[in-house]
Amino acid sequence: MAKILLNKKNLFHNLNLISNQAGSKEKVAVALKDNAYGHGLKEIAKLASEFGIKKAAVRSHAEAMKIKDFFEYILILADNNITTCSDTFHVALNSFESIALLPNDINVHIKVDTGMHRNGILPSELEKTILKLLEKNMNITGVFTHHKSADNLLTDDFDKQNEVFSKVKEETKKICKKLSIEIPSFHSSNSSALFRHKSMDESFARVGIATYGYLETTPSDNLPPLKPVMSLWTNKVSSRILKKGETVGYGGTFMAHEDMNISTYDIGYGDGFLRLNEQHHYITPKGFELLGRVSMDYIALNSTDNEVCLFDDAKPLAKLHNTISYEIVTTLSRDLKKEIE
Amino acid sequence: MAKILLNKKNLFHNLNLISNQAGSKEKVAVALKDNAYGHGLKEIAKLASEFGIKKAAVRSHAEAMKIKDFFEYILILADNNITTCSDTFHVALNSFESIALLPNDINVHIKVDTGMHRNGILPSELEKTILKLLEKNMNITGVFTHHKSADNLLTDDFDKQNEVFSKVKEETKKICKKLSIEIPSFHSSNSSALFRHKSMDESFARVGIATYGYLETTPSDNLPPLKPVMSLWTNKVSSRILKKGETVGYGGTFMAHEDMNISTYDIGYGDGFLRLNEQHHYITPKGFELLGRVSMDYIALNSTDNEVCLFDDAKPLAKLHNTISYEIVTTLSRDLKKEIE
Repeated sequence: MAKILLNKKNLFHNLNLISNQAGSKEKVAVALKDNAYGHGLKEIAKLASEFGIKKAAVRSHAEAMKIKDFFEYILILADNNITTCSDTFHVALNSFESIALLPNDINVHIKVDTGMHRNGILPSELEKTILKLLEKNMNITGVFTHHKSADNLLTDDFDKQNEVFSKVKEETKKICKKLSIEIPSFHSSNSSALFRHKSMDESFARVGIATYGYLETTPSDNLPPLKPVMSLWTNKVSSRILKKGETVGYGGTFMAHEDMNISTYDIGYGDGFLRLNEQHHYITPKGFELLGRVSMDYIALNSTDNEVCLFDDAKPLAKLHNTISYEIVTTLSRDLKKEIE
Repeated sequence: MAKILLNKKNLFHNLNLISNQAGSKEKVAVALKDNAYGHGLKEIAKLASEFGIKKAAVRSHAEAMKIKDFFEYILILADNNITTCSDTFHVALNSFESIALLPNDINVHIKVDTGMHRNGILPSELEKTILKLLEKNMNITGVFTHHKSADNLLTDDFDKQNEVFSKVKEETKKICKKLSIEIPSFHSSNSSALFRHKSMDESFARVGIATYGYLETTPSDNLPPLKPVMSLWTNKVSSRILKKGETVGYGGTFMAHEDMNISTYDIGYGDGFLRLNEQHHYITPKGFELLGRVSMDYIALNSTDNEVCLFDDAKPLAKLHNTISYEIVTTLSRDLKKEIE
């Protein structure tokens, strides 16, 4: 049975780098959305909590419920289908219209669009939004934004968005003073942004991909020495000698140039290990070659080992798939067994 | 909340074409492995059973357990970690070595490698395998094989594998007669193979992708008129006017050429909707354009509709991703809500 092996030492190494950069463990919210980027929601929640992280960010209320015992503070980023809400949960408001969809009396973080133009209210809607939230007796516990290009040092998008958000923060403080309400938390840093700031003067950073050992900042000089947390392992199903001239798998796209020992292994794109075909060339960390096409439940390798590590770093696969490491780890099936080493 | 809508009429239309081609409903085993190719294991099991299908093929014992009440006969294709097994379950033997891993007294289908060179015993190992299975008091209820290129009319692989399997069948019958044991079921047809045979003289066909409305036979003339069963729907999160010159999403890779209404929708590659970026150009069935990059939880479209159908046919997306329709549907997250229309 294929499995995801989680390297606790690497995770703690990353969380240590992140906490130091943020200033303290209290200033880190670990992003656990999408099954902790494929790593296992509960597994990473438990480990992050053991490390001393107190805050988490998830996508849905259902995710928050699964990890509520591990954290003092949980930010729900994208869920309007909420009926009741724990005191430790804080719900992101992604549009003015969604105020009407949310229940009264909950904790809300207002998302402000500072230039990504994806979600959030406009800076000009700030006062209107705060007043509407107060009408529903909601606690405004946060105001935040998201960077579109914090991972790109070659543009000035990061600075521009920071400038807009600074004004949003000032404006928020003014409105709060006027209305005699508490000033909320402010946060804007994702992984890339956190490592670009010289010092973190906000309430906390929301750290996803760096937790798991990746950072795709361009150019990639001076990146923090993060270590991948996940490795993917697969077990042998059957072995045979592929004779010279014989082919293996669908379409017979790999042909043996000499007699060779091959085996099939129990993973495929049905497990979210994205499909490679004859146009790709992938070599496992131990040097085994992926032969022909990835099928739904199987791959073939020039190996007879009982268990093979398919990857311990998602970057080479991301490159082959013309995508980012995030997708390689996040698409892995939730049903894959998780083990902690 | 994003959802998968299952078109019952289209499913029954496909199952009707498949059953007619196979000779009867009894001669069809519907492949439900990998969450019914992403469509929902229980949902498709229930519907296929309602249509009158009696047999199913799954990957694991756990999958078989979830649908055992819907079928009289379930073939488990890839699971050696079985301790007990229902009388209605039949376990595929993918290698001689795995006999030792399986419990005694179960029903076994021997997989024979007739040229795909992926899984199965060699034809020369047939008698040895049967004798070993009998030692463990197993019931040999099936002998089967899998085609590597039934979807390719331009090679003779299909005929060659059929020839080898014909010999395997004859040899099996001889051995069974000699040992005074019952002759097992024989099956070799997947979706493509079923529609290539003029008449089905085997026990049943294992039909996966055709059930769901796809067949990727090359060249694609004279394909049966199958209809896609799945459509993928996503809900609006927030709308805004993207002004001329403004960009949306990560990297700001889509820029508006004039003021336009856009919205974000609640699906991303975290849901298994594979990531597209600025190198791709995707248009939804209703004509909305996917703007910029797919992010983990969101996409942006030039739409303000509350609910948008992202695809009702996986083929255009498969083409964009340089893959097959199977992968587009199968990688979708098990957590996506399923509705039946």
